[in-house]
Amino acid sequence: MAQQKATNITWHEGFNREERWKLLGSKGATLWFTGLSASGKSTIAVALEQTLLQRGVNSYRLDGDNVRFGLNKNLGFSAEDRAENIRRIGEVAKLFADSGTLALTSFISPYRADRDACRELHEKDKVGAIPFIEVFVDTPIEVCEQRDPKGLYKKARAGEIKGFTGIDDPYEAPTKPELVLKPETMSVEESVEACLDMLTKHGIIAKA
Amino acid sequence: MAQQKATNITWHEGFNREERWKLLGSKGATLWFTGLSASGKSTIAVALEQTLLQRGVNSYRLDGDNVRFGLNKNLGFSAEDRAENIRRIGEVAKLFADSGTLALTSFISPYRADRDACRELHEKDKVGAIPFIEVFVDTPIEVCEQRDPKGLYKKARAGEIKGFTGIDDPYEAPTKPELVLKPETMSVEESVEACLDMLTKHGIIAKA
Repeated sequence: MAQQKATNITWHEGFNREERWKLLGSKGATLWFTGLSASGKSTIAVALEQTLLQRGVNSYRLDGDNVRFGLNKNLGFSAEDRAENIRRIGEVAKLFADSGTLALTSFISPYRADRDACRELHEKDKVGAIPFIEVFVDTPIEVCEQRDPKGLYKKARAGEIKGFTGIDDPYEAPTKPELVLKPETMSVEESVEACLDMLTKHGIIAKA
Repeated sequence: MAQQKATNITWHEGFNREERWKLLGSKGATLWFTGLSASGKSTIAVALEQTLLQRGVNSYRLDGDNVRFGLNKNLGFSAEDRAENIRRIGEVAKLFADSGTLALTSFISPYRADRDACRELHEKDKVGAIPFIEVFVDTPIEVCEQRDPKGLYKKARAGEIKGFTGIDDPYEAPTKPELVLKPETMSVEESVEACLDMLTKHGIIAKA
């Protein structure tokens, strides 16, 4: 499906990434938030984005809900469309990271293979590896189902939504995420702190 | 093809665009370069990007050549794939613009309907209109064909490439572009100046 189709194309150089990041005084990276529906991914990503922007670090959130209305509006929830959904998001996150922005992606992204493909896109980039930080938002399904802010678990249990992650479709937890957040026992502020520490440790942002 | 497929989704607000742009001290917009192959689009876009970055304005170039290796690598050159190619680029440019970056897109984008659809995406954005500046790089086909840096016109004339814009596929020139550049009679510096003037006039960047 995602085979290279077009030929007669060559790579355009222009400004190189290092010069660009240096001029902007920023580094790009992708923070890939993954976890069940209602696990708290977006809450943390929103809070992190605000914290970073207030520190003058350009960051931009790609979110399942808003990307689905635009770039990926022609995709549904078939296995093939789900894979393509994540693939496109991985590519766009990489473009943002390349531009010198911290891309924060907030998607259930239930399949390991799809996430690993996005990681590979970043780490094997031909210009040089782009940091890819997988953040597992590890909230137990019982807690997610109890929260159920959009009533989706209820609909899934009632059979009104098919192929719902955690109910009748699997969530494959990351085996080696760079970071695990547990919103059950951590405040949003603590989760944001943990992300900032991780970004500092990777040399992506300066110590506050 | 680009119908809204997914349901059960809601719009995520988070930080609003105005607050974000204010914090970053920048405004987003899309400069859409259109013109024949070898018209000089990318040369101007590269030079403009460098000029903007050196002025501390974050700008990022989306280019037919590099997007085709990533996000759009599963698209070929059928009419349907060409339209989808431009649609995705329009959506990604809009994401960059929303983030506060100047998106510079450099594609032949031969069909008026596809470009107009991208314009509409920007101008009718639900959060508020995002500036969309169409820049027609108006180099006569005879000149492009004489340059032919990649030998593509030659191949198209020989029938080795089918559906090549200007040879056996139409280029529909913009009827009301915001800016017309004529690389035949303008230096790259003059074209860059004209783009900067246009961005200043629209209040997107400050006077140098």
